[in-house]
Amino acid sequence: LAEEHAKRLQALEDREAIRDLIARYGPLADSGQSAAVAQLWCEDGVYAVGGMGEAIGHAAIAALIDGLLHRALMADGCAHLLGPLAIDLDGDHAIAWGHSLVVKADGGDYAIYRAAANRWTLRRTLAGWRVERRDNRLINGGEAALELFARVSGPQPAN
Amino acid sequence: LAEEHAKRLQALEDREAIRDLIARYGPLADSGQSAAVAQLWCEDGVYAVGGMGEAIGHAAIAALIDGLLHRALMADGCAHLLGPLAIDLDGDHAIAWGHSLVVKADGGDYAIYRAAANRWTLRRTLAGWRVERRDNRLINGGEAALELFARVSGPQPAN
Amino acid sequence: LAEEHAKRLQALEDREAIRDLIARYGPLADSGQSAAVAQLWCEDGVYAVGGMGEAIGHAAIAALIDGLLHRALMADGCAHLLGPLAIDLDGDHAIAWGHSLVVKADGGDYAIYRAAANRWTLRRTLAGWRVERRDNRLINGGEAALELFARVSGPQPAN
Repeated sequence: LAEEHAKRLQALEDREAIRDLIARYGPLADSGQSAAVAQLWCEDGVYAVGGMGEAIGHAAIAALIDGLLHRALMADGCAHLLGPLAIDLDGDHAIAWGHSLVVKADGGDYAIYRAAANRWTLRRTLAGWRVERRDNRLINGGEAALELFARVSGPQPAN
Repeated sequence: LAEEHAKRLQALEDREAIRDLIARYGPLADSGQSAAVAQLWCEDGVYAVGGMGEAIGHAAIAALIDGLLHRALMADGCAHLLGPLAIDLDGDHAIAWGHSLVVKADGGDYAIYRAAANRWTLRRTLAGWRVERRDNRLINGGEAALELFARVSGPQPAN
Repeated sequence: LAEEHAKRLQALEDREAIRDLIARYGPLADSGQSAAVAQLWCEDGVYAVGGMGEAIGHAAIAALIDGLLHRALMADGCAHLLGPLAIDLDGDHAIAWGHSLVVKADGGDYAIYRAAANRWTLRRTLAGWRVERRDNRLINGGEAALELFARVSGPQPAN
């Protein structure tokens, strides 16, 4: 019984850790904490940003945050807002699915600058859950985002 | 003690399952997976969409997603984004409260097409938690949405 | 072992309670439930709203919701939408970090009226978790919001 409880606790803690990890992305990105953003990923992690190629590894991911485009967003004022996550947990691996918006200040107004479909592929490392790969695909009626979310499955099996 | 722990685990798993179930709505709806969207609901489930009547049962709910209006949204590019949920859990029944936005691509820009107040009434089935009824009421200053959220209660009792 | 399980359960319940508490803010604020909004805070709680000073204590927080500005938002139709939370839990104290948007109806359209960075400082009371202080800082390219989110840390230690 204690062993079964331990397994159930672990699954809950895993989901919680994954949710917490990904929830840090927005505040860290908004404030330009490039090293901390990169540490959400594994050392060899990949961040594939729709329309902007793939950043591979911590230095490349940090460089996205330190880059001109991101710095210009920060100068205007931006919110990297995420939606809720559907999480497929499978032992030491997981996939989390959800939306992201970039909201940009524009004088006294705000505009949605990007809306994207996201798949976060994660694995358990010695240091805890980390992102192996984030696929971010712009929602614009094109196939890329549709095809990504077409892989999300319906209700998960009951405990 | 083990029995008390089992109860607490169950309550956490129930909340997690409800959150995960509802988090699947957006990606499934965005990608037009009408059958999987319908399966979030009980067989006799109801989806009452503000200003669009009630869809009752899996076939009717799937038909909403397969319908012209939804297909037009998908052709433009859309994000059915949900906010966080406040969950009132009561044994095999639960009510979850939260916002929904439909963000629509418009060329290179994005606009919020709908903002709504939602009440998700759920029950535990043999297959897991499912939606009995989703009430979605357009936020427009009218009574419908205000009246729905006026039923949300303050802080829940401590464990 | 049972003691260790109890500790892990408690930590999960604490995070869940904090997330549920904060998720009630939006629906309660949208529907003008000023007393219930105030009860999310401790008796001596502080709500520091960017550009609008500090409300201290239940009566002052309720007065914000009952005030002219908030009532005008409600008359137009508004959604106080929150993003996901990164939660730093430390015994009977916690800090939660995340975005907030105020979406406002404008005839048949919607506009984002405010986007803000939030730090929620919480403590466990006899009645459960309550907000000690919410710092809400407008995202507009200025230092206030950047400085707040610059204090968010990277991945939390593994369990």
